[in-house]
Amino acid sequence: LTLTGDYGILPELPAVGGNEGVGRVAEAGDGVSGLDQGQTVLLPVGSGTWSSHVLAEAKDLVPLPNDADPKQLSMMTINPPTALLMLQEFVDLKEGDWVIQNAANSGVGGYLIRLAAQKGLHTVNVVRRESAVAGVAAQGGDVTLVDGPDLHKRVKEATGGADIRLGIDAVGGDATDHLANCLTAGSPVVNYGMMSGQPCQMSPANVVFRDISLRGFWLSRGFS
Amino acid sequence: LTLTGDYGILPELPAVGGNEGVGRVAEAGDGVSGLDQGQTVLLPVGSGTWSSHVLAEAKDLVPLPNDADPKQLSMMTINPPTALLMLQEFVDLKEGDWVIQNAANSGVGGYLIRLAAQKGLHTVNVVRRESAVAGVAAQGGDVTLVDGPDLHKRVKEATGGADIRLGIDAVGGDATDHLANCLTAGSPVVNYGMMSGQPCQMSPANVVFRDISLRGFWLSRGFS
Repeated sequence: LTLTGDYGILPELPAVGGNEGVGRVAEAGDGVSGLDQGQTVLLPVGSGTWSSHVLAEAKDLVPLPNDADPKQLSMMTINPPTALLMLQEFVDLKEGDWVIQNAANSGVGGYLIRLAAQKGLHTVNVVRRESAVAGVAAQGGDVTLVDGPDLHKRVKEATGGADIRLGIDAVGGDATDHLANCLTAGSPVVNYGMMSGQPCQMSPANVVFRDISLRGFWLSRGFS
Repeated sequence: LTLTGDYGILPELPAVGGNEGVGRVAEAGDGVSGLDQGQTVLLPVGSGTWSSHVLAEAKDLVPLPNDADPKQLSMMTINPPTALLMLQEFVDLKEGDWVIQNAANSGVGGYLIRLAAQKGLHTVNVVRRESAVAGVAAQGGDVTLVDGPDLHKRVKEATGGADIRLGIDAVGGDATDHLANCLTAGSPVVNYGMMSGQPCQMSPANVVFRDISLRGFWLSRGFS
């Protein structure tokens, strides 16, 4: 989205792509302490991480374990806090509550499954193709289903009609309304992406008669 | 919507249509005081007012002036409180603030224009055809425009770029997003109808990057 110019914040041009990443300290400037050469560090968000070398302020670099998987570490600034904050900021969920998300096979989706389980929450995980079901189910969610207009019926069956108090949408289009159909009246759908390329759709039957709201989550708003 | 079975609350069948209306007391039962024969009264919401005679509890009948226009009185229970509560319940608006609504030539729309003006609020009033502009403009709103994908540009021009802190949508479809495009970041669109027959659409650019939310208003929720 940054490259196509559709992201919410755009860098001044010319610019290097890449919002997240880790690096190893190649050289520390005069007066820098606590960052030895070779130290693995988290790079500041938006620092143009599609680079072999990045110049950054020492105070903006977070030291990380040198022996952990750099691919895992590189995602620390965006996907995990996005999943965690969406679970925390919109509904006061209690142990045993249910959450439904689509794009469950995404990076955020995988963190959400595991963070929800740690909190004792149950998850319904929705994907857009049958071939994604097994991988998502293996991550430990409670229910994994393929999206469709009858999603709410299959969810009701799979959960025994449980109250579902939060919907997490990264797809948009009619997928947003499919989540809305599954929620308990008065609950929000929180959108954070549009993998379908379509605007979120929500029927007045959900918005008006069932008090389902549509909210947005953007991690950058939390940073600023 | 009641007749097609799409309304949020449906009466048990067989049932008589009509949610709102006034009548004159034809006969009072034993022990009823304060309701003389001929007294104009507001009928209880949902009492099947498409009838020549209605049987109702005396305590549910609100006496009204006998000399006022019964057509005006008959609308008191639904449209005026809908317009008033949508102006009050979602955003803490101050004198001089701006609101935008579509379907501005509707019953609710007319009340909203006048109630907003009474509160010192400015209104942008959107309609779907040029022939509705004059009638709406005559009701005293500040700006009246025909809907379209470039609505936000014309609104900006007409208001001098004023902050618009509340959107009121009775149309759905892409008209919802047209209102969202006009709002100051962080503001809600409140939907109360779907005259387009389409689900509300809102782009993640508005939902995620501009923190525009979609909420629903249903007067019956307030009653219950």
